[in-house]
Amino acid sequence: MAKKGKTAIEPTRDEDYPEWYQQVVKASDMAEKSPVRGCMVIKPWGYALWENIRHNLDDMFKSTGVKNAYFPIFIPLAFFEKEAEHVEGFAKECAVVTHHRLEQSPEGGLVPAGKLTEPLIIRPTSETIIGDSFSKWVSSYRDLPILINQWANIVRWEMRTRIFLRTSEFLWQEGHTAHADKEEAVRRTRMMLNIYARFAEDYLAIPVMKGEKTFSERFPGAVNTYCIEAMMQDRKALQAGTSHFLGQNFSRASDIRFQSADETEEFAWTTSWGVSTRLIGGLIMCHGDDDGIILPPKIASSQIVLMPIVRKQSQRQEVMEYTENLAKALKEKRYGGRRLSVEIDDREIGGARGWEWIKKGIPLRVEIGPRDIAQNSVFVARRDQTPKEKTSIGRERFIIQIDHILDEIQHNMFNKALAFRKKNTVSINHREEFYQFFTPKDQKKPEIHGGFAMSHWCGEEACETRIKDDLKVTIRCIPFDNEREDGECICCGRPSRERVVFAKAY
Amino acid sequence: MAKKGKTAIEPTRDEDYPEWYQQVVKASDMAEKSPVRGCMVIKPWGYALWENIRHNLDDMFKSTGVKNAYFPIFIPLAFFEKEAEHVEGFAKECAVVTHHRLEQSPEGGLVPAGKLTEPLIIRPTSETIIGDSFSKWVSSYRDLPILINQWANIVRWEMRTRIFLRTSEFLWQEGHTAHADKEEAVRRTRMMLNIYARFAEDYLAIPVMKGEKTFSERFPGAVNTYCIEAMMQDRKALQAGTSHFLGQNFSRASDIRFQSADETEEFAWTTSWGVSTRLIGGLIMCHGDDDGIILPPKIASSQIVLMPIVRKQSQRQEVMEYTENLAKALKEKRYGGRRLSVEIDDREIGGARGWEWIKKGIPLRVEIGPRDIAQNSVFVARRDQTPKEKTSIGRERFIIQIDHILDEIQHNMFNKALAFRKKNTVSINHREEFYQFFTPKDQKKPEIHGGFAMSHWCGEEACETRIKDDLKVTIRCIPFDNEREDGECICCGRPSRERVVFAKAY
Repeated sequence: MAKKGKTAIEPTRDEDYPEWYQQVVKASDMAEKSPVRGCMVIKPWGYALWENIRHNLDDMFKSTGVKNAYFPIFIPLAFFEKEAEHVEGFAKECAVVTHHRLEQSPEGGLVPAGKLTEPLIIRPTSETIIGDSFSKWVSSYRDLPILINQWANIVRWEMRTRIFLRTSEFLWQEGHTAHADKEEAVRRTRMMLNIYARFAEDYLAIPVMKGEKTFSERFPGAVNTYCIEAMMQDRKALQAGTSHFLGQNFSRASDIRFQSADETEEFAWTTSWGVSTRLIGGLIMCHGDDDGIILPPKIASSQIVLMPIVRKQSQRQEVMEYTENLAKALKEKRYGGRRLSVEIDDREIGGARGWEWIKKGIPLRVEIGPRDIAQNSVFVARRDQTPKEKTSIGRERFIIQIDHILDEIQHNMFNKALAFRKKNTVSINHREEFYQFFTPKDQKKPEIHGGFAMSHWCGEEACETRIKDDLKVTIRCIPFDNEREDGECICCGRPSRERVVFAKAY
Repeated sequence: MAKKGKTAIEPTRDEDYPEWYQQVVKASDMAEKSPVRGCMVIKPWGYALWENIRHNLDDMFKSTGVKNAYFPIFIPLAFFEKEAEHVEGFAKECAVVTHHRLEQSPEGGLVPAGKLTEPLIIRPTSETIIGDSFSKWVSSYRDLPILINQWANIVRWEMRTRIFLRTSEFLWQEGHTAHADKEEAVRRTRMMLNIYARFAEDYLAIPVMKGEKTFSERFPGAVNTYCIEAMMQDRKALQAGTSHFLGQNFSRASDIRFQSADETEEFAWTTSWGVSTRLIGGLIMCHGDDDGIILPPKIASSQIVLMPIVRKQSQRQEVMEYTENLAKALKEKRYGGRRLSVEIDDREIGGARGWEWIKKGIPLRVEIGPRDIAQNSVFVARRDQTPKEKTSIGRERFIIQIDHILDEIQHNMFNKALAFRKKNTVSINHREEFYQFFTPKDQKKPEIHGGFAMSHWCGEEACETRIKDDLKVTIRCIPFDNEREDGECICCGRPSRERVVFAKAY
């Protein structure tokens, strides 16, 4: 519980942002580290959030004709080697299965036995194994497009892990499509990125920049990678979703050929696109405050907690009945495409109860005591306001207005995040100013710096590398909505025709 | 397409049941073998079915207070070794991760590198890794019960695999609960089995027998295993779901201790329960006919296909508009807890189109031609009837009665399966008759035999083993609803007080 003057989370964002993140995750009860190196346990409060993300995105995908399927978790080594850049990109972080049973060793204890003739890779992404299926499914242009998505677990053996942001195993969706026509594939790549952007902004309340990656930041094997980039409260960027135009690279590697309408044999054009449980990390870092996480109502694990206040045992029945009736009435209502999710917390643990829900980020906390019941009203606190701001609202008005209240919180969160990003996004034209922008003001807080710099870049990888080496700053994207503007490269001074987004990134 | 006198699937069930199964799966476009040994690719038509299974079961679990979570796919070897029977049961079929990257070998090609200090097992089931979390989550009786479920992929390195029935990787849900009280844990074990039985009968239209496993058929490490057993059309049994009372075995292994209300320290009582994509195999084998699979309406990947019939190009627009309007009207309706799922198939491929949907098992096929439109009616064929039985129904009546029609199919399927099971379930009291019952009549069809035998058993494992060795027949379960009846063991003749279910099994 927060003591006077103190916040529920220590340290505060300002004191130590990375540690604040760890403490917020812990206090939210969303997830925890597991005894398996780099893997997390997603607890019910975190998993419910993921279910809501999954459900809403899934509907959006399906509305564009995408169908779900499921492919093996194992990728034979030979498949993996087919696309040279691809294997280069993932070889260093692959979990490899080499045996298929355990045997008692002479020294006691179990040891791996039954060596596989070919090692199997646990999918770090599924282009090659799904490509193999596509090659069997496609023979004529009439079989195209194929629009497939899978919800799956993924393993990338990361050396430095952080819950939700970078874990050895994570959950994601990966879409894979194949087309007869290049333009159609490019359109699909853009379409899916637009869905990610709409989802991030409308559901997660996270404003994002849409754009294209530079060559060095592309997905291994892609022709083009599009991305959405969000600003966290330490002003660093988080890549929140990517959509790749793969050209014919993977169809050549997997032999996805088809007979075209004019009877020539051609390779299909493919795309892939994904978002992961990383979104939850972004959500936390974009919206959390020094009292814990704040969940956007549309996607919250649960939207409302009712907390009956029983001071005398004689009041118990009346208060509980009133609370349960209110819960029932609220659950009849729909919000964000599903029924309102309402919790009743009748534990008798005083103020700690309210603080637990604050730390869990639930959008609305409602207290119900005998005095409220006498007035047929409820005492409502919004998570996007300070813990002490509570309002008494008549019961019926509360029920009728609930979607307006939740919408207000949702918009409020988005607008606050957007204002923050705007405030910390600066057009910079001079090299010195650029270097200063990215240099921490306070050496004790090496994390804190300027934010996003919109600056000119000549297009040369050498300049990109230089800036990365000097400042750990990368080009997050070349924005789609760029207007042509003549200028000089922030690094070398050579002519440039557009600004790009420079930032430190997760 | 089926030629006259022929069926759409060759061979027929009667000619070669195992091969019929493979051909039916192929013709249904639900799944296919993958290039990875023993793994399957679940195609959209099969995955949609799994999504419906998942969605409905998930609601049923949640209505009993269960919450979803997610635990690591990897189990450290040391965890796995904690429960002796458990590791004994799974050691022979474990995929083992031993390395965490790939390296270019001097001879060219990639080889596993970065050897792990401790090998990791890919979960064949998650009692030990989830138990580790429970041990951290529980300290007082107030923390109990914990009611958790996860939807996940599982790997068991099976030597003989068959799509959906037995694959090296499969999808499932595994519920895990911990309780302060033994009786409560036993009640939960029963409660979840009852949910499985209700789901199998009400949604999959598969009649099941509920009962307890004998010692030799128990889950490795369980005190008791409850199961539901269904009869397939070759009269063999399929175990369709299991629920295990684990006693304190796993809480001792994982150290799940709590302070009881009277302040003593105790080990928790745990349960686990699961069903998998195997249910789809059961569905196919229970309901399929010689024209392919038949999907129960409540759970079907899609319930209705509309097939516009356009003989002249000039009719095209009118027919398509009528079809799309009908689809729209049908999609407004709900069935089995979700909106009706309606396909439009406007391919001009003649009779092959209808046969494709028959093989896919869609409950209703609707033809719409200019003559139907003139009468404002549709031409409807039910998958549970012969392909030629088609009925003309007025459009409005069809829309109004759609849920009755689907219900009729659903019940029809269940009743047919129940009648089949009854017909092939026989009480047998004499050893000779029992042996004859399980001996194939026709040596060319070793699969075909009597069915389920309800016979007395003395309770000795020796008798069970003898029968298994002689006939490949096992005790599927000791039914819950058994009435006490004195009799003689079918094997040794010693006294017995109840009958058990003997059958050959998948």
